[in-house]
Amino acid sequence: MPNVLREDLRLPLCALRAGAVDRNIARFQRFTESSGVLLCPHAKTTMAPALFGRQLAAGCWGLTFATCAQLEVARRHGVPRVFYANQLLGAADVGYVCGELRRDPGFDFYCLVDSVSGVRLLAQRVAQADPGRPVNVLIEGGLAGGRCGVRDVGTAIEVAQAVRAADPQLALAGVEGFEGLAQYRDAGRREADVRAFLGFLARIAEAVDDRGLFGPGEVLLSAGGSAFYDLVIEELSAVRLGRPHRVVLRSGCYLTQDHGIYAGLLGDIHRRTGSAEPDLEPALEVWAQVLSVPEPGLVILSAGRRDFGQEAGNPVALAHVRRGTAEPRPLREAGWTMAAASDQHAHMTAPPGHGVAVGDLVALGPSHPCTTFDKWREIHLVDDDYNVIGTAATCF
Amino acid sequence: MPNVLREDLRLPLCALRAGAVDRNIARFQRFTESSGVLLCPHAKTTMAPALFGRQLAAGCWGLTFATCAQLEVARRHGVPRVFYANQLLGAADVGYVCGELRRDPGFDFYCLVDSVSGVRLLAQRVAQADPGRPVNVLIEGGLAGGRCGVRDVGTAIEVAQAVRAADPQLALAGVEGFEGLAQYRDAGRREADVRAFLGFLARIAEAVDDRGLFGPGEVLLSAGGSAFYDLVIEELSAVRLGRPHRVVLRSGCYLTQDHGIYAGLLGDIHRRTGSAEPDLEPALEVWAQVLSVPEPGLVILSAGRRDFGQEAGNPVALAHVRRGTAEPRPLREAGWTMAAASDQHAHMTAPPGHGVAVGDLVALGPSHPCTTFDKWREIHLVDDDYNVIGTAATCF
Repeated sequence: MPNVLREDLRLPLCALRAGAVDRNIARFQRFTESSGVLLCPHAKTTMAPALFGRQLAAGCWGLTFATCAQLEVARRHGVPRVFYANQLLGAADVGYVCGELRRDPGFDFYCLVDSVSGVRLLAQRVAQADPGRPVNVLIEGGLAGGRCGVRDVGTAIEVAQAVRAADPQLALAGVEGFEGLAQYRDAGRREADVRAFLGFLARIAEAVDDRGLFGPGEVLLSAGGSAFYDLVIEELSAVRLGRPHRVVLRSGCYLTQDHGIYAGLLGDIHRRTGSAEPDLEPALEVWAQVLSVPEPGLVILSAGRRDFGQEAGNPVALAHVRRGTAEPRPLREAGWTMAAASDQHAHMTAPPGHGVAVGDLVALGPSHPCTTFDKWREIHLVDDDYNVIGTAATCF
Repeated sequence: MPNVLREDLRLPLCALRAGAVDRNIARFQRFTESSGVLLCPHAKTTMAPALFGRQLAAGCWGLTFATCAQLEVARRHGVPRVFYANQLLGAADVGYVCGELRRDPGFDFYCLVDSVSGVRLLAQRVAQADPGRPVNVLIEGGLAGGRCGVRDVGTAIEVAQAVRAADPQLALAGVEGFEGLAQYRDAGRREADVRAFLGFLARIAEAVDDRGLFGPGEVLLSAGGSAFYDLVIEELSAVRLGRPHRVVLRSGCYLTQDHGIYAGLLGDIHRRTGSAEPDLEPALEVWAQVLSVPEPGLVILSAGRRDFGQEAGNPVALAHVRRGTAEPRPLREAGWTMAAASDQHAHMTAPPGHGVAVGDLVALGPSHPCTTFDKWREIHLVDDDYNVIGTAATCF
């Protein structure tokens, strides 16, 4: 079996600790089931069909995607239920979705609407493409200053009425929002902001329910990135409508966790809930070679911004393997930092006596898995000794 | 023929204006020929074999790459001469290169060394892999506080002596440096810093030449990103050695230019040289749909940080196409800015009366092409009317 630490593979490379991934998937599935919510993980994180398969096998309700190109990958790999957490508007995009709905009666699809004009455009394009059944939509509520989504209940009602008027092209299945944007706000305000936003989604749902504007079936209330899912579960489960509803949680980063932003946010969740659940382990690593130690305390690695994301903070140095030893030595507490990154190099500052030489290996732990996954076409699945036990292709 | 403006394709998409690309390739090739230097463009910019083919057909000397995975793509597509602008150290990576050298007598390969220990490791691995002929190396000189590369002439001589001691595994072909890191320095110091660095490379070459440590054939002196190639041509062409030398320029971004950092740097080049040559046009665009106008002055587009690079500045809004008209209206001077980007969305602030509605299209012009190319597996080649006349696959 090829081994990362023995340099059997091209460098740099992206490794996923398979044991940690399997434990994360099982634990998060159990956590959502015991919380009484449906799990529909955002699969744009990995775009790796082999990992979709593990999530579906563990029992998740469906998978979430954000673009039509992503959706097409999912459908090619047989994903039966898709939450399209975005507005669906493009002519070619609507055409593709309607074709899939017509072709496969088992395909269950949901997308978002947030404006009367968007509803009318979607309905018109659905009518042209003729899927043979309604397209399910949820009203998106948005944070002020944030992204898509209605900003007030009055607009939400107008949008719901537009959906009703677009019957039988569209059917209103629920209400959705993405509270995760609040993670960029001041730490002291975050929890209150998220609760207020979830309360806004609840008020939309109640107003639409009062007016009888939801379509047939259970109402879906959906939110949940990976920063505040405890609050989503608490607030949206507490909503009372005139008919049954289900909470759909879309968190995606639990699969790999991370060594940065989501590590900290998981700590916040544990503190808020007073529980150690869910217990998630960081699983994603980028391995690079020491190319040069051109100045004391400056170590140049063979991985750069084309190999890891930086927008949620630079990766941290995890481990050092002296060439030929295959013995990782932890670096987390060793005082290394990434001073800069070029396209293909990381510029690391290391403390005196760092003991690292040209040809050694260093593992980096990224913050925010999404923008590291999308740098790779192949992710190596490794066991605890860094033997490569499989490879997951990504389809970005 | 599918047309971008008529929404015949999935959105978002990446478009390359084919006419501008062809003109850029021809003009830059002419510019380097008339300057008397060899062009070996850094092809990691695009990683699109169809574009490699256009550059080679125009007459470039070779192509430059930075990782062994990139090199393998080049070799699969028949690129005969590769400048590997990086240290080559990994066991699997050295094995691959040596296998190619053995398999194909027409394969001409050059890589970098910057330390005695790196030279010894490379030589040992070359000896094991037995390519049947020496691996050509150039000594890399580096900027203080920068990336790889020796920091003083004394070390360069030691490295050159180590290469000589590694005969017949290695042959010393020249001296290399990347002056482009100086673009991040204070504007007032840049030109002087770059000239000083190029002078340092020249001193290395002279010292190595004086000691008779270069291998057989013409000496290669190579530098050149896309920020200061005028200075590279001037300074390195003026070097006088005891034997003939050629200057190898590795600029890669000329192929697409950009709408940000390199647009500004090209202006600097024109000012320094007092010439309008080379005349390059921005060719790379990301087209997205208006998904939502949730607040006055806030426009949410369907492309985000997974669709364009941001590390050299956010993309600018280039054009607006009202849905159904296929008529682009320029936005460059219209006061739009990108306030933020999520993975799959751009958050644009637009002035009052922006006249943009849900379902319209907006074109974005990235800064730094490299980190936009690597977001896409397919780049659409378009004519001046945005008809899709071809598709270039990327192989990142």
